[in-house]
Amino acid sequence: MKDLESLSAFQAAKKLAKREIKATDLLLACLDQIGQRENIVKAWASLGKENALARAKALDKGAIKGLLHGLPIGIKDLFDTHDLPTSYGSPIYANYYPRTDAVSVALIRQAGGIILGKTVTTEFASFKSSSTTNPHHSEHTPGGSSSGSAAAVADFMAPLATGSQTAGSIIRPASFCGIVGYKPSFGKISVAGVKSLAPTLDTIGIFGRCIEDVALGVAVMSGDHELANVVDLHNKPRVAVLKTPGWQYASPDTRGAIALARFSAETFAKGKVSDIDLPAELHQLTQIQTRIMLSEMSRSLAFERMQYSKKLSNLVASQIDQGAAIEYKQYKLDLDQAITARKMMQNLFDENVDLIIAPSAIGEAPLAKEGTGDPLFCRSWTLLGLPCINLNVSSGHNGLPIGVQLIAAYGKDQFLLSAARALALALPDPVLRDQA
Amino acid sequence: MKDLESLSAFQAAKKLAKREIKATDLLLACLDQIGQRENIVKAWASLGKENALARAKALDKGAIKGLLHGLPIGIKDLFDTHDLPTSYGSPIYANYYPRTDAVSVALIRQAGGIILGKTVTTEFASFKSSSTTNPHHSEHTPGGSSSGSAAAVADFMAPLATGSQTAGSIIRPASFCGIVGYKPSFGKISVAGVKSLAPTLDTIGIFGRCIEDVALGVAVMSGDHELANVVDLHNKPRVAVLKTPGWQYASPDTRGAIALARFSAETFAKGKVSDIDLPAELHQLTQIQTRIMLSEMSRSLAFERMQYSKKLSNLVASQIDQGAAIEYKQYKLDLDQAITARKMMQNLFDENVDLIIAPSAIGEAPLAKEGTGDPLFCRSWTLLGLPCINLNVSSGHNGLPIGVQLIAAYGKDQFLLSAARALALALPDPVLRDQA
Repeated sequence: MKDLESLSAFQAAKKLAKREIKATDLLLACLDQIGQRENIVKAWASLGKENALARAKALDKGAIKGLLHGLPIGIKDLFDTHDLPTSYGSPIYANYYPRTDAVSVALIRQAGGIILGKTVTTEFASFKSSSTTNPHHSEHTPGGSSSGSAAAVADFMAPLATGSQTAGSIIRPASFCGIVGYKPSFGKISVAGVKSLAPTLDTIGIFGRCIEDVALGVAVMSGDHELANVVDLHNKPRVAVLKTPGWQYASPDTRGAIALARFSAETFAKGKVSDIDLPAELHQLTQIQTRIMLSEMSRSLAFERMQYSKKLSNLVASQIDQGAAIEYKQYKLDLDQAITARKMMQNLFDENVDLIIAPSAIGEAPLAKEGTGDPLFCRSWTLLGLPCINLNVSSGHNGLPIGVQLIAAYGKDQFLLSAARALALALPDPVLRDQA
Repeated sequence: MKDLESLSAFQAAKKLAKREIKATDLLLACLDQIGQRENIVKAWASLGKENALARAKALDKGAIKGLLHGLPIGIKDLFDTHDLPTSYGSPIYANYYPRTDAVSVALIRQAGGIILGKTVTTEFASFKSSSTTNPHHSEHTPGGSSSGSAAAVADFMAPLATGSQTAGSIIRPASFCGIVGYKPSFGKISVAGVKSLAPTLDTIGIFGRCIEDVALGVAVMSGDHELANVVDLHNKPRVAVLKTPGWQYASPDTRGAIALARFSAETFAKGKVSDIDLPAELHQLTQIQTRIMLSEMSRSLAFERMQYSKKLSNLVASQIDQGAAIEYKQYKLDLDQAITARKMMQNLFDENVDLIIAPSAIGEAPLAKEGTGDPLFCRSWTLLGLPCINLNVSSGHNGLPIGVQLIAAYGKDQFLLSAARALALALPDPVLRDQA
């Protein structure tokens, strides 16, 4: 029963459904890994060991509950859980037990998932650094805000963990930790019971070590169970590289990863992988996303600003105040631009491309003391509401992982998963091909 | 200080800001009215008398806090309040004190509003009847699901009260109770901290006795403070009557109200008030809205279905099960149709019309024993995400109020408020003109 923790979620789920392995053993393997590594990685805000063990035993005895039967899952501590403390990364909510699970958490339980514990989030999913370290090098950041979820999955502490993205909080940490991160189409998964930061942007997603893992997680949390079955591509897709505005900041490592992804995609693309650019009108999306996020944060955190002002970090307090200073007229203009941008992107997809390859992050994970990294290359895609997947394609000059971001048209999640799998299979490094 | 409770929210807010009346006196007048009528109307799930009085005294002494300074406001018991029990109309949440206010509630407090108490909601905002009665006739329903908010405002217990609409839970009770109900454009107000039923549809709004009242409430809850200033119409708008699919069920009372609204709108419309129809492709919106709502309910209430199955009413439990039985493929098809429908409506507005007049409800408030009334004429507009206002325009054969629904293009909330005011001013009955 050794090394059960290294099974991917999809592999483990299949074995659990066939009763080839026990939920209890898988759970113990994960807990053992946590025991060995948590003092360095610091991925967990809390563990639900007793409840998880009791649940695993019950699942081993009872009928198969659903797609996640017996799978231990980490829940970002921005998601409400009725049986584990939920702090949203803030001392304001220390020892808070919500009355209800977030909708996505309830659906995980309903499908037989075992809530292993809560993973560390930055304070209210902001850019404030958390204590979690990058499993590949403890002086580097795992990224934020889903710091603990990305690190836990990368470090084999859990096969799956939930995340949320408002700027770049799934794709960026997945890139830094060298795993698969999946932000589905905006609205695909209910945000109810996940601490709200910016309703126009907040998107629920998941981390896993393979494409099929993240497909499984989103299938359950959305109710779109067919997603779990990642099918082969029917037709050769039109693939293009899109150097997101800000490309001048991309490190040589990131540029190399894009080149490698392009090269690999040539094997399954329709024709050559082309280069496209965002329409000129959309070059301000990064700034628009930033203003919308700050403006909405100032309302979303109004309660905390009023009642617990002194328990907010300076960073979050100043973001709220910045947001409150943005005129509503500007905010409304930005929202209108976002609507226009979504239409223009839809036209771009209709006419020119099925799959976009874009950078996930500027480069390798920066040193922890420098922050959680810049979400520059994620902001536009979050604002556009498009489904995005980070795939680990190479490593950088420090030996840390470098991912690329794959993007499809709104609602084309099933296709995106298939395309990401095709790209993973085409990677030159056999170890990285295991992501397929 | 008599009759302060009969001041509209806007009038009272002006007098409070000028210190012409005291918040404490207004609050006492409302509490007095509640004392006299609550045993019949049953609008309140809980009252926060002590806290409200302390807050009123503090506001009378302190600086002007914002647009709602000193105004007592009822909060639908679907909204989280940290200092008042929040039951969502369900015994599952009896005596539950959330840790945080809903975002909209926090913004009301920030603007100087006084949380007077929680108003009765039907169980999880469903169609299950509540105990609240119609202030105009206690054997009739006030409508649902915002039963208590509509009844409290109609009965002068509070000048403003919050509501939410997933099918027809603002417009219908406003029509039945003879007040102004305003459901702004979808997404205008954050739903965070309001019990989620169907994220694609859930919309926060407000009840008042005048157009300026509801403008004030939504201005504060959205952050769009300019909305509070309801300006005169700049240009004559193109006005059309749109007999929503299902018109054959409209009672003679409702048909008469539409005729009266048409007649009144002729005074400010550009040319004759025309008749338009929904494009033929959109005649199924009612059915689409119903399926989307049920499908999403089955996920949104998965926690309650799993953990507290026996504390759910048969009606809600069966709705969840109905929703769970809808194939995701069908749901996805319905979502796609909704997106197409929103585009087609935008074209209709661009080309033909600025203001739509449509029925709010089938007729007068039915008898309470018959349920909370049919949301038939609201479902399509909720699905389309358009801003809607109910205006009271006449009374029916039992002497109960009959409203009409005014609808504008997405995001045209400011215009809708101005147009609703123009229509109110043009009504033949001078008492109803007071809604302007």
